[in-house]
Amino acid sequence: MTGFDPSKVYAEAMDAQDELAEFRQDFVIPDPELIYLDGNSLGRLPRQTAERLQAAVTEQWGKELIRGWNQDWYHAPTRVGEKIAQLVGAAPGQVIVSDTTSLNLFKLVVAALRAMPGRQRIISDTLNFPSDLYILQGCIELLGGQHLLDLVPSSDGILPDLEALEEMIGPDTALVTLSHVVFKSGFLYDAQAITELAHKAGALVLWDLSHSAGAVPIELDAWGVDLAVGCTYKYLNGGPGSPAYLYVRKELQQTLCPPTWGWWAQREPFAFDLDFVPAEGMNRYLVSSPPVLSMLAMESSVEVLLQAGMDRLRRKSVAQTSYLIDLSDHYLATLGFTLGSPRAVEQRGSHVSLRHPEGYRVNRALIEMMNLIPDFRAPDNLRLGIAPLYTRYVDIWEAVQRIRRVVDERLYERYSVERLAVT
Amino acid sequence: MTGFDPSKVYAEAMDAQDELAEFRQDFVIPDPELIYLDGNSLGRLPRQTAERLQAAVTEQWGKELIRGWNQDWYHAPTRVGEKIAQLVGAAPGQVIVSDTTSLNLFKLVVAALRAMPGRQRIISDTLNFPSDLYILQGCIELLGGQHLLDLVPSSDGILPDLEALEEMIGPDTALVTLSHVVFKSGFLYDAQAITELAHKAGALVLWDLSHSAGAVPIELDAWGVDLAVGCTYKYLNGGPGSPAYLYVRKELQQTLCPPTWGWWAQREPFAFDLDFVPAEGMNRYLVSSPPVLSMLAMESSVEVLLQAGMDRLRRKSVAQTSYLIDLSDHYLATLGFTLGSPRAVEQRGSHVSLRHPEGYRVNRALIEMMNLIPDFRAPDNLRLGIAPLYTRYVDIWEAVQRIRRVVDERLYERYSVERLAVT
Repeated sequence: MTGFDPSKVYAEAMDAQDELAEFRQDFVIPDPELIYLDGNSLGRLPRQTAERLQAAVTEQWGKELIRGWNQDWYHAPTRVGEKIAQLVGAAPGQVIVSDTTSLNLFKLVVAALRAMPGRQRIISDTLNFPSDLYILQGCIELLGGQHLLDLVPSSDGILPDLEALEEMIGPDTALVTLSHVVFKSGFLYDAQAITELAHKAGALVLWDLSHSAGAVPIELDAWGVDLAVGCTYKYLNGGPGSPAYLYVRKELQQTLCPPTWGWWAQREPFAFDLDFVPAEGMNRYLVSSPPVLSMLAMESSVEVLLQAGMDRLRRKSVAQTSYLIDLSDHYLATLGFTLGSPRAVEQRGSHVSLRHPEGYRVNRALIEMMNLIPDFRAPDNLRLGIAPLYTRYVDIWEAVQRIRRVVDERLYERYSVERLAVT
Repeated sequence: MTGFDPSKVYAEAMDAQDELAEFRQDFVIPDPELIYLDGNSLGRLPRQTAERLQAAVTEQWGKELIRGWNQDWYHAPTRVGEKIAQLVGAAPGQVIVSDTTSLNLFKLVVAALRAMPGRQRIISDTLNFPSDLYILQGCIELLGGQHLLDLVPSSDGILPDLEALEEMIGPDTALVTLSHVVFKSGFLYDAQAITELAHKAGALVLWDLSHSAGAVPIELDAWGVDLAVGCTYKYLNGGPGSPAYLYVRKELQQTLCPPTWGWWAQREPFAFDLDFVPAEGMNRYLVSSPPVLSMLAMESSVEVLLQAGMDRLRRKSVAQTSYLIDLSDHYLATLGFTLGSPRAVEQRGSHVSLRHPEGYRVNRALIEMMNLIPDFRAPDNLRLGIAPLYTRYVDIWEAVQRIRRVVDERLYERYSVERLAVT
């Protein structure tokens, strides 16, 4: 294939030579006219997930009843964790499925800060997902208010000020914690370089992989990362609110201990001793009985990604986000859209934000009139997520045409500027 | 019906006049010969749950995709919380579904202890579920080790020393936290009386309702309870590891604030502000996106209980646990079994523990040879759970015959005394 061509024929030709094209058949797609570009928020339903969940309900819960715990369920946090480990470059024994991303962040941040007495500074950035910042603020307040949260600024809302970050990291730094891919602009950090910087200063590093796992290659072990958390309902297609995971580097596992001493973190939970003794491995990062149905649904979804492989997924993701940017330059730039994501491939995750002063109303019109689902993030970001497992080039081409029409024909004016609570 | 009669005919007659008998049809019971007496650990699968979950997966996640959040999902923690509120005697706006029981306990205990400066003592008992004790120990360690955990003793493993409890509560007491029904013996606390005792001393009270909700009448508002937590996978039949709930009395909601400042606890989560401001109502006790599939399955299950009504459920539960004790006295007492639960009806939840020196092996033999599922809790408790929605009198009668046979014919000797990790 030669260079970019704005015609639909080009999109169709790209689909025809897509090495991952067959994976689209693994997903439930009841309305082929609906273009779904929000897999970065909630991934599509894999075909095998519905079947496996039905089996978990009727065959396991229904027939095996409590015995299900001895079969598939009790070891699910470890078993599913090891599958996710393969997606994030972690050797066995370092990833476990547990609770929610924010709770895992809470558990690890409290443990990390308490393991670094004398170091008062936490570094994050203004582009981080707010829940991560809130959790950090809560941890600081909980631990007596002695820590300081320094946020790396961003002049354009797209890129963090990397020089400022480098300057901030110092001998007072306890923890550097960032989203590997940031939620609005899709900026992708060089996690390895920043981990090395932090380690040179003696700080710990925690990456939130929610917007990067399943979308970009991750090598936690090779990069020397200390801690990581992530959700499973975006590119991992785990289903709404599916359980999160966390990673703790082998050498740190016995040093750190979260404050949430539930029985699943106990060395021998079924001994029912009255005093807590933490488990030696990753189990100490668990708390208590996980939501099994949601976890088994997610396990099934993760398997689809493992089949596709991260290298192929990244290759297609890069090609598709680049294609989307080219189409936007061609069709949308004259309509008031500007790029809200990095243009450089190595700085970009798997979604593209297009900024427009009427972004909120444009988003509503696209969903309600155009059968196109992106999402919107204040103040003006129309986010378009690329999920290489099921997004086609023609979907991207068609999406840009629909966006063009909504703005060109001012269809968005039918919608109020007043925002819904949930967007 | 006149008094107890050890014949099967009596059991059949009791079933024939059971006002809740029809509810058994609302459950999936693929093997009618299997006697399931472990609904106190994992409730059976309600028929409508499987259907509703399938719809949530294929109709909502599959078709509506991210729009599901605007429909059924986003308000599920509140909506389902209000259904549970009706089971535990709470007016609207005080119960919310979130995370796990242990995590909810953690959130509320940290919040409660920090709201009671100057009071150093926490009171619980040795009969409490160990995870609750571990969480308390973790909170104490986290908050600097200044608090003391006093455990009310039990001389027989069945009843707590209520006089000791009364003496322990004093001006230093910050928090009294107990399981309403304890997990081994099934002892049922007089929650109202103990709440009043604690309040007289100026202490807060937190009840763990895991083994009582759906099994005994609960009136949190009327009893003046401050805080409560509970799981939903036992008598509420919510499915394996289904999400837990918590209750915070209206007047305390703005005073307390958990340390887990996730975005669902934020006043306006979708404003994506960088600084945390807690929500005013129960939302501040949330953390982040819940496991929706597990939550919707559970919602469907709770509705079955609401139809049956707590008064009828308790009436049948009392009749059935009493019947089981009578049968045990008649058939099992001479075989080395002693009662591990209170004989007094007003002190008993909805399961009966029978203690036997070979309890562990008896339990294994019952499961593997006899198609009867109770469970075992160390050192010698064979727990027999009564779930009035689907347990029949003939099930109880037949269970006692099978237990008798396993001990009388020493069938348990085929099993090792070495314990499996998961029991």
